[in-house]
Amino acid sequence: MLTLLHRRAHNLLTLRAVQTATSCHYVTQMGKRVAVVLAGCGVYDGTEVHEASAVLVHLSRGGASVTMFAPNVDQMHVVDHLKGEPSQEKRNVLVESARLARGNILDLATLSAKDHDAVIFPGGFGAAKNLCTWAVQGKDCTVNGEVKAALQAFHAEGKPIGLCCIAPVLAAKVFPGCEVTVGIEKDDKYPNTADTAAAIGQLGCTHVSVDVAESHVDEKNKLVTTAAFMCDAPIHQVFDGIGVMVQDVLKRA
Amino acid sequence: MLTLLHRRAHNLLTLRAVQTATSCHYVTQMGKRVAVVLAGCGVYDGTEVHEASAVLVHLSRGGASVTMFAPNVDQMHVVDHLKGEPSQEKRNVLVESARLARGNILDLATLSAKDHDAVIFPGGFGAAKNLCTWAVQGKDCTVNGEVKAALQAFHAEGKPIGLCCIAPVLAAKVFPGCEVTVGIEKDDKYPNTADTAAAIGQLGCTHVSVDVAESHVDEKNKLVTTAAFMCDAPIHQVFDGIGVMVQDVLKRA
Repeated sequence: MLTLLHRRAHNLLTLRAVQTATSCHYVTQMGKRVAVVLAGCGVYDGTEVHEASAVLVHLSRGGASVTMFAPNVDQMHVVDHLKGEPSQEKRNVLVESARLARGNILDLATLSAKDHDAVIFPGGFGAAKNLCTWAVQGKDCTVNGEVKAALQAFHAEGKPIGLCCIAPVLAAKVFPGCEVTVGIEKDDKYPNTADTAAAIGQLGCTHVSVDVAESHVDEKNKLVTTAAFMCDAPIHQVFDGIGVMVQDVLKRA
Repeated sequence: MLTLLHRRAHNLLTLRAVQTATSCHYVTQMGKRVAVVLAGCGVYDGTEVHEASAVLVHLSRGGASVTMFAPNVDQMHVVDHLKGEPSQEKRNVLVESARLARGNILDLATLSAKDHDAVIFPGGFGAAKNLCTWAVQGKDCTVNGEVKAALQAFHAEGKPIGLCCIAPVLAAKVFPGCEVTVGIEKDDKYPNTADTAAAIGQLGCTHVSVDVAESHVDEKNKLVTTAAFMCDAPIHQVFDGIGVMVQDVLKRA
């Protein structure tokens, strides 16, 4: 296709040129080294794009250097976001996550907790479909082996782990006895929180009801969680709540 | 695929249920009615996701009610964002844009300037590949008919038009004599601005060099433009510059 491009336009807009020019966006600043783990691109089959974007904006403002990762596996399925229904396509989690990372992303298999001060998991159905099987098995889900290893490694080193939206179920599954929030139980603004909280309780964990504007910190396990789009809130409130989560992660990194 | 889902998980995470629960995110607030026109989902073949997200966060904070639109056409091509190379897939601009809109998006053919106080076009290569053919033809490009009609309709009604990154070339093509910015000419932080500015000049328009933190306002034409990711800047600076553009649009709406 690129061979079709007009030479001047090619000079203006060459993909690789731009990719090179922007390759330092997330790594030029001094500060904490934070890994961000993605799960595709789009709320219904991947990472919720506005949650990922909010995480990156707040990390950048906090002076962190960010490296993004995603598992190199097929998505559980592909959802046509216009119809709200699964399609017959196949897409790869790492390739689609690269859309959020502007191409600057690594295979999750290469993530080492020793190279980072913290790790953050944005939400979206991808966290419950591609990073674990919560969307189809609830509390009986299995967690992707690389995701589980990453969580355990950061935990073992006493490094903070941030999660938002549905992603806190990953921590609940891997760290029995931990505390997380996925919003406020029995509140119409949080239509799925009560059921999710009940399943978290069945895993032997404690669900703490916390508003979208705040985060909950499990100091013992260094877990920082916030409701994000588990709440039917205006997008700037979701953005601000994720900012609180990111700051709480950076303070402990 | 949904028939495979465990019943309890289905109750927790049904696609349509969540879509309904979140359907009012962008329309529950009082204030200016703003149309946002998307061009896919991903910087190299669609809308730059962080620019779109920033536009939505700032509009939400500004109390605007937002309706998103995209043309119901095939993308010029699909780029594998991990490799930075075109793939052989086909994707639809409206369907992929729905990933950014959490499903709440309309066909651009239905956009009426009379129903909105302003319109905003985020950037990304999609603006130069799917909304016009700038990426392959530069100043000799053609603009998608619905995009051109929308720009002309808002302009004719004296309603503000916001554009960022490469999207200002749409205004330069449709409104000869207008003023726009795509960053600072002859500055290493803006690797593609000089060439783009030269082409804008050849269209009879004036390019104004403006830093990523600011916007330029063409008061006569009510065009508000900002560099965004035309600048190799940290993402929070891009976010803030888009905030200035959005505020300048809302002030004039």
